[in-house]
Amino acid sequence: MAVKQYIHDNQEKFLNELLDLLRIPSVSADPKFKGDVMAAAEFVKDSLEKAGADKVEVCQTAGYPIVYGEKIIDPSAPTVLVYGHYDVQPADPYELWDSPPFEPVIKKTEMHPEGAIFARGSADDKGQFYMHVKAFEAMMQTNELTCNIKFMIEGEEEVGSSNLDIFVKENKEKLAADVILISDTSMLSLENPSITVGLRGLAYMEVEVTGPNRDLHSGTYGGAVANPINILCKMIASLQDENNHITIPGFYDKVEELSAAYREQLNKAPFDEIDYRKKLDINAVHGEKGFTTLERTGIRPTLDVNGIWGGYTGEGAKTVLPSKAYAKISMRLVPNQDHKEIAELFQKHFESIAPDAVKVKVTPHHGGHPAVVPTDSPGYKAAESAIMEAFGKKAIPTREGGSIPITSLFQKELGLDPILLGFGLDTDAIHSPNEHYGVKNYFMGIETIAMFFKYFRESAK
Amino acid sequence: MAVKQYIHDNQEKFLNELLDLLRIPSVSADPKFKGDVMAAAEFVKDSLEKAGADKVEVCQTAGYPIVYGEKIIDPSAPTVLVYGHYDVQPADPYELWDSPPFEPVIKKTEMHPEGAIFARGSADDKGQFYMHVKAFEAMMQTNELTCNIKFMIEGEEEVGSSNLDIFVKENKEKLAADVILISDTSMLSLENPSITVGLRGLAYMEVEVTGPNRDLHSGTYGGAVANPINILCKMIASLQDENNHITIPGFYDKVEELSAAYREQLNKAPFDEIDYRKKLDINAVHGEKGFTTLERTGIRPTLDVNGIWGGYTGEGAKTVLPSKAYAKISMRLVPNQDHKEIAELFQKHFESIAPDAVKVKVTPHHGGHPAVVPTDSPGYKAAESAIMEAFGKKAIPTREGGSIPITSLFQKELGLDPILLGFGLDTDAIHSPNEHYGVKNYFMGIETIAMFFKYFRESAK
Repeated sequence: MAVKQYIHDNQEKFLNELLDLLRIPSVSADPKFKGDVMAAAEFVKDSLEKAGADKVEVCQTAGYPIVYGEKIIDPSAPTVLVYGHYDVQPADPYELWDSPPFEPVIKKTEMHPEGAIFARGSADDKGQFYMHVKAFEAMMQTNELTCNIKFMIEGEEEVGSSNLDIFVKENKEKLAADVILISDTSMLSLENPSITVGLRGLAYMEVEVTGPNRDLHSGTYGGAVANPINILCKMIASLQDENNHITIPGFYDKVEELSAAYREQLNKAPFDEIDYRKKLDINAVHGEKGFTTLERTGIRPTLDVNGIWGGYTGEGAKTVLPSKAYAKISMRLVPNQDHKEIAELFQKHFESIAPDAVKVKVTPHHGGHPAVVPTDSPGYKAAESAIMEAFGKKAIPTREGGSIPITSLFQKELGLDPILLGFGLDTDAIHSPNEHYGVKNYFMGIETIAMFFKYFRESAK
Repeated sequence: MAVKQYIHDNQEKFLNELLDLLRIPSVSADPKFKGDVMAAAEFVKDSLEKAGADKVEVCQTAGYPIVYGEKIIDPSAPTVLVYGHYDVQPADPYELWDSPPFEPVIKKTEMHPEGAIFARGSADDKGQFYMHVKAFEAMMQTNELTCNIKFMIEGEEEVGSSNLDIFVKENKEKLAADVILISDTSMLSLENPSITVGLRGLAYMEVEVTGPNRDLHSGTYGGAVANPINILCKMIASLQDENNHITIPGFYDKVEELSAAYREQLNKAPFDEIDYRKKLDINAVHGEKGFTTLERTGIRPTLDVNGIWGGYTGEGAKTVLPSKAYAKISMRLVPNQDHKEIAELFQKHFESIAPDAVKVKVTPHHGGHPAVVPTDSPGYKAAESAIMEAFGKKAIPTREGGSIPITSLFQKELGLDPILLGFGLDTDAIHSPNEHYGVKNYFMGIETIAMFFKYFRESAK
C-alpha cells in the first residue's frame, strides 16, 4: 500500500513536527500558560489545514477552544470522528525532570530500545492525537482515504472538558459519525498489543479544613485547640478501612459485580508482579483486599489523595498550629457509578465526619463517568484487524484504570461507542516527571490508524 | 525613683530603637536571611555598649553568634544573668499579614487599646529582651543599678539553640550568676499579671513516606500501589486515639501525675472558654479527654502536625499518585519526659507502623526538656515584689504550654533556676501572621525589670 510507504518515507518529518508541538507548554490547569494553550490550538489548526482538511476552525468556548476540521470524500461512505486533546498536565515538580519538560529529547530506555520522546504531553495526548493528523495526511497524499473524517481536538481534557459538553450538544449534526476513534490510552506492550474496552470514571474533590481563625503557637494552644492537619489526616484515614475498602456510605451501591468467569479472563492478561514492583521500587503492592492488581486497577473504584498541604513546609522547624489544611482527593469510578452522585456522597460524608472543633469546605472539581466499550461493533472489529495487520497479533481487550470522562458524553449525546486505540505504555510516566512516548509506538500508531480506515470502510458496510 | 522617671521620659526613644531592631528580618531557620541574622547580632552589641555594658562581645559559634556583655558594679553584690534571643520565626505565610512583617506599625486592638507593635519578633523575643537593655540603660543613667548584670543574647532559639549548649558549658565562670532572668513568655493580662512557673519541652520530628519511585498516574496505578499521602494520613491519625490520647508506646511513662489539689489550683486561673472560642472563631475546644483547657496546655503533653505536604498543590486538578509525602510533627512534653527519649520512641513507633508498601524516613529536628520553676526562691520573690510594685497586684503563678528548651540547660549547667518574667499576651500571635506586642506591656515590662533589680538585691542578701 502506498500509504505505508508514505509513512515510512516521512518518519523524520512526522517526528520533527511533533517535537515542535511538544515545545508549546499548553498547561490548561494553570492560567499563566493561557497564551501557550491558545498557541497550541493554532498549531493544531495549521496542521489540519496542511494535512488537507476542510472547514478547519478554532471553535471558541467559554474556556479553551476546540479545533475542528473535516474531509468528506463521499457522503455515502462511513464517517470517523477523531477526538484528542492538545492541552497537557502541569509539569510540576520540575526538579524531578531529567530534561526540561517542554524541550523534547529522544533517549533510549529499557522499554523503548529504539528511543522515546521525553516531554510533557508526548504520550498524553499530543503524540497520540497527532498520529491521526499524520495518518490522515498520508492517506490524503496517497489517495487512500477510504472514509470521511472529522477532527475534534480540545484543550481542556486535563481540567475536566467542561466546555466540550456544550459544544457536543450544540453541534450534533456537524459531529455526526459512525464511530469515534480516540488514542489517549495505553497498550500492554508492542509485543502484546491491546485495545482498551473499559475506562474508570472520576470524581475529583478539594477539601479545606479550618481550625482556629489564624495560625497559632503550638506551645500556647497545642493540645487544647483542634489542629486542622491532625483532623484532616484522621478524616482522610477514616475514608478507607483496614481492608482498603472505601467507607463512604453508598459508595459501592452501584458498582458492577463481575462474574468469576469475567475476572478469570481479566487475570489472564500478561502481568508480572515481581517486575511491576521492581519498576516502581516497592516491596509490596497495596490495595483492596480480595482483588488482584489487575482487578484493583481495572474493575474496582479507588480513593487517592492527589495532593495535601498545610502549615509550615519550608526548611527547618516552625512550631505552628495552623489555621487551615487542604487536600485534593479523587476517586476512580467503575461502570454504573455516577460521578455526580459519588461527588455528593463524598461531600455529605466528609462534612458529617468533621468534629465540631473545625469547619469543612468541600469543592468538587471535574468528574467523568466510567465507560465500557462493546467488542462486537464494526469499529472494534476494524481496530482488531488493523492491529493484526500492523502488529501481526490479535489485540487483547483490556480494562484501563484511567479516565477519559468524555467517552460517556459521546455515547450519550452522539450515540457513538468510542474505539480506544491507544499506543502508549503504562510505564510512559504520563502525568509524572519524565513523561515519554516511544518513537516506534508513534510510527506503528500512525500505520495502525491508516489500516483502521481501510478495515472500517469494509466492516461498516 | 529616678529610674522610673527616666523610663517615662524616654518612652519615644525606647520605642523607636525597638522598631529599628524589628526592621531586621533575622530569621534563623532560613539560610537566605543569614546576613540579616548577623546584622541583628551587631545591633544587639551596639545597644549593649551604648547602654553602658562592659566587655561586649559577639561570640562566634558553629552557628549564629551569642552576644555577651556585662556590668560588674560590686563583686559582692548579687549577679543577674539575662537571657534572650535576637532571632525570629519565619514570617510565612506572608500573604496573611495585614502589614509587612519587617515593617513595624503601631495599631490599636481590642486587647491593646493603647496600641501594639505589629512585626515578626515584636513579642518573641526582640520586644521582650530589649526591655532588659533599656531597663539596664535607665538604671545606669540614674545610678540605680543595684546588682551586677550579665547579658547572653543568642541567635538560634527558634532553631533549637544547639550551639548555646556548648557555649554555656565552656563559659561557666563567665556566666556565673545568682539568678537567670528571661522574658520570653506571656502573662495572663495586664489586669492579671502572672509569672510562668512551668514550661513544656519539645521533640520536633520530620517524616518522609515514599511509595513508588516516581509520581504515577492515579488512573493507571490508583488502587494497586500504595499512595504515600493516604498512608501518611493513616499513620498520623493512628498516633492519637479517639480520646486524643497519644498511642506511642511508652510516651506517657514518665509524665508527672499531678494531685487533685494541684489541678484544682491550676484551674483557678482566670479562663473564659466562651471568650477563648470567640477569639479563635471555633465552635468547640478539642483535646485529651478528661482534662480542662488549662490542663491540656499546662500539664499534658501533645502531638501536633506543624506542616504537611505532598503531591499536587497548585491550582486545579492533577491526577497524580505521588512518590512522596512529608510532615513536620512536634510533641510538647511535660516534666520528667526526656525529649531525646521521646524522639526515639516516636521514631521507633513510626517506623514500626509503616506498611510494607512504603518506606519511611524519620529525622529529629531540635528538642528541649520541660521545666518547672520553684516559687520559693529569692528570684521568684523579687519578681513577685517587682510585679506588685509595677502592677499593684500579686502575680499568679502559671504553667505555659510553650517551650524554652534552654531553661533546663541553665538549671543543669549553671545551677540556676530561671525566672520567667514575660510580658506578652497569649493573643499576641507569636509564631503567626500579625505578631504584635503591646506598647504598654513594653513600658510596664521595662519598669518591672528595673524594680526586680531593686528587690533582688534585697532578697538575695
